[in-house]
Amino acid sequence: MPSIDLNSDLGEGFGDYRAGDDAAMLSVVTSANVACGFHAGDPQIMAATFALAKERGVAVGAHPGYPDLWGFGRRTLPYTPAEVERLVAYQVGAAQGLAAYAGHRITYVKAHGALGNLAAVDRGVADAIARAVKAVDPGLALLAIALSAQAAAGEALGIEVHQEIFADRGYTEAGMLIPRGQPGAMVTDPDEAAERVRTMVEEGAIVTASGRRLPTPIRSICVHGDSAHAVATARAVRARLERAGVTLAPFRP
Amino acid sequence: MPSIDLNSDLGEGFGDYRAGDDAAMLSVVTSANVACGFHAGDPQIMAATFALAKERGVAVGAHPGYPDLWGFGRRTLPYTPAEVERLVAYQVGAAQGLAAYAGHRITYVKAHGALGNLAAVDRGVADAIARAVKAVDPGLALLAIALSAQAAAGEALGIEVHQEIFADRGYTEAGMLIPRGQPGAMVTDPDEAAERVRTMVEEGAIVTASGRRLPTPIRSICVHGDSAHAVATARAVRARLERAGVTLAPFRP
Amino acid sequence: MPSIDLNSDLGEGFGDYRAGDDAAMLSVVTSANVACGFHAGDPQIMAATFALAKERGVAVGAHPGYPDLWGFGRRTLPYTPAEVERLVAYQVGAAQGLAAYAGHRITYVKAHGALGNLAAVDRGVADAIARAVKAVDPGLALLAIALSAQAAAGEALGIEVHQEIFADRGYTEAGMLIPRGQPGAMVTDPDEAAERVRTMVEEGAIVTASGRRLPTPIRSICVHGDSAHAVATARAVRARLERAGVTLAPFRP
Amino acid sequence: MPSIDLNSDLGEGFGDYRAGDDAAMLSVVTSANVACGFHAGDPQIMAATFALAKERGVAVGAHPGYPDLWGFGRRTLPYTPAEVERLVAYQVGAAQGLAAYAGHRITYVKAHGALGNLAAVDRGVADAIARAVKAVDPGLALLAIALSAQAAAGEALGIEVHQEIFADRGYTEAGMLIPRGQPGAMVTDPDEAAERVRTMVEEGAIVTASGRRLPTPIRSICVHGDSAHAVATARAVRARLERAGVTLAPFRP
Repeated sequence: MPSIDLNSDLGEGFGDYRAGDDAAMLSVVTSANVACGFHAGDPQIMAATFALAKERGVAVGAHPGYPDLWGFGRRTLPYTPAEVERLVAYQVGAAQGLAAYAGHRITYVKAHGALGNLAAVDRGVADAIARAVKAVDPGLALLAIALSAQAAAGEALGIEVHQEIFADRGYTEAGMLIPRGQPGAMVTDPDEAAERVRTMVEEGAIVTASGRRLPTPIRSICVHGDSAHAVATARAVRARLERAGVTLAPFRP
Repeated sequence: MPSIDLNSDLGEGFGDYRAGDDAAMLSVVTSANVACGFHAGDPQIMAATFALAKERGVAVGAHPGYPDLWGFGRRTLPYTPAEVERLVAYQVGAAQGLAAYAGHRITYVKAHGALGNLAAVDRGVADAIARAVKAVDPGLALLAIALSAQAAAGEALGIEVHQEIFADRGYTEAGMLIPRGQPGAMVTDPDEAAERVRTMVEEGAIVTASGRRLPTPIRSICVHGDSAHAVATARAVRARLERAGVTLAPFRP
Repeated sequence: MPSIDLNSDLGEGFGDYRAGDDAAMLSVVTSANVACGFHAGDPQIMAATFALAKERGVAVGAHPGYPDLWGFGRRTLPYTPAEVERLVAYQVGAAQGLAAYAGHRITYVKAHGALGNLAAVDRGVADAIARAVKAVDPGLALLAIALSAQAAAGEALGIEVHQEIFADRGYTEAGMLIPRGQPGAMVTDPDEAAERVRTMVEEGAIVTASGRRLPTPIRSICVHGDSAHAVATARAVRARLERAGVTLAPFRP
Repeated sequence: MPSIDLNSDLGEGFGDYRAGDDAAMLSVVTSANVACGFHAGDPQIMAATFALAKERGVAVGAHPGYPDLWGFGRRTLPYTPAEVERLVAYQVGAAQGLAAYAGHRITYVKAHGALGNLAAVDRGVADAIARAVKAVDPGLALLAIALSAQAAAGEALGIEVHQEIFADRGYTEAGMLIPRGQPGAMVTDPDEAAERVRTMVEEGAIVTASGRRLPTPIRSICVHGDSAHAVATARAVRARLERAGVTLAPFRP
């Protein structure tokens, strides 16, 4: 079995505000998606996050979002694909600049929040993000939601794509996330989340609500950074995978 | 005589707002200092400015400033040198990302407005900017005010430094800009500005208010982009230099 | 015939940026819709605009918009009606504060751009705006697009409502604005605009594309402040109405 | 003995970010200084804070600061007194609008952070704030640091002024706050803070580092809202005063 990656959204504070326990998370995950200053993050927080990730041997990716600090990037804003392309190019470049400054190196890009969700289902936006990433640096990989339009868009453009599943979310029969608010959308118990993840990783398949297996090349597991149980869930997932003999390592060091 | 460069601050709009006539300026200057979204500029304007500069054969530099759209980067804000370092690294990276996206390439960095003025006299801030530039990309040059702390800081760090004079400003006996509001601070007549520039370029010296010559390795001439006579002054300077047989070319293509 | 009002969006700059020729416009219009700092405007510009309006005898209204300086308030953002309600209450209060500071007084509210357009057709948003206005100050009037959901919402809540038509826009058979980009949407010739307005004011009816008359209590005419021909159109409309013996005066002094 | 007021800075989150435990604090204090959207706060948070304060019988004041979300209003920004005047007028108006919307009423103004500290020692800025408050609404009171330039400026302009002391800070022999970082600046033990406050309130005097008494008309006690021990300190102060027979009530209901 190949190694598996554990990723989380980090550096999501702004100024004096903080979101999540980054220091704890950086001792559990193998890849950190770092906010780029549009939906969260600022140059000071970004530099500090990159430096700590470097120290802990955690890989770092740019985590661009909509320019919406007020909404934390969770509102879908009416930008055209062409505008999204430039928003993403700007943020990826900024993250590369600060990662270099901190002695680290961006190896991948993952779209945040509403932008990532839209790119999972809207091929035009997914293409725009893929084009931006390739234009800024063709050596960068894309971290995409499994079976999403984003994964397809990256592959069509010849970018290295890695697919992720979510530790704390249920899946529809089509392999999509069950929308929040619907029954089975969230897996709140850390142990249950950990066990689900182990099954999916070992079987190389997404497990749907009905128990069906959808074969998927799973390369990373996303654990959210800002919920109450985030660190506990991340630790449980990591421990369960290690007990099962799975090696945890960045998908792109 | 070596060639000389003509630079101007461009891409200084935001959203629907515009500042200066960028299209006209890009047919006159040889280097464009492009705002990076903190004091002015946004990803759409940056991409468009880089693309047009590329088309016109104009070199592009990152033009980072304080995060102060309201004050257009003209207010000195109380950031520590360490904070300035990260503000600059962020903006330089963002500019590199969007320049690559637009098919162009950032070759230098010049600090904007109040940040540039402070770095001209405050060695701590000048060192911070130089460190940020070197950390992000040691291949980048610094465009610095002639005889400034910024020039000294860049050289001390082993970065390629190019010095500029201002077409529309008077100089003190120490070679510093006469502060705005004092007699002789501004040269408003385009022809007078052009003639002054020709003298300084040909003699390789800054001409002070009293007529003294301060030998200086002048590599570029700054013409401001947002004043009423900006384009006229730029054209007059360029025409006067060409008539004198001086070649105009980017200091760093 | 009662007097008629001429209104325009003013104070739409930000920091050093300017939009439109406010000084010229304030010598033509009788009511100024002043941006409140969210889609445009800042406290300095607001105070200056209120002071100049006071000096010229021009009535002032709060002109709240989406918090979107980048998009100039022209993008529909996904705020709930409850959120809109508070956005509007904040901006109306801020405008009242600065108007009082400048020795003037806000007498009405008109929603800007995408927010105004949405409130013209979406009763939920229209109700939210009306509730916000009434809660902040029940003595304020609403300036609403003729025949819009906003007008109905204000009346249902017992607020004083005044209806406006646009000098430079064509109307559908239902009395709605022909969407930009469609034939007949814009009336670019100032004299034609002026003549259309005269007809509509004298007949007390909106004239549709086919020439049909829709009886409407027209109390104000909107001339846009930021287009190239804005001042010329405003002057032509005013002159044409005065020649026809119509008195121009604020609908709510 | 007259009643005494307990005030705290509240509503200092932004979007999804939170600062301090507002719900707990609102069950202890008698006045809430509510951030107005410039250094912290947004219309949703402001409305919710005003509504909860109303429900708990807590008086509310506008708490304007520099436009500096990144720095939480703790950096002194280079605004002129005239600019400060308009910044304050805008924020006070916005707070009045949202307080009215939430069924409550602003009764006073207190400047935040770096702006408040500057106004304590710089009479020009103190006058600007006082002028803004009076211009927006002459019925508003000023809550000012005891013995400060702000208190003097308000009195000189004929505004109602109330003076406050800090529960967790030491005082110089001149009655000024001992600067943070110097010995005796902070009182971290809640019980010690409570006992100090009781003494000052009962004796009607500020107690300096050496134990000297400076007679002062103390009307309110400030307990900070965003430190770790904030709620504990507030509760200890309140309990100690109530045990001593002091009535706690808003200085301006």
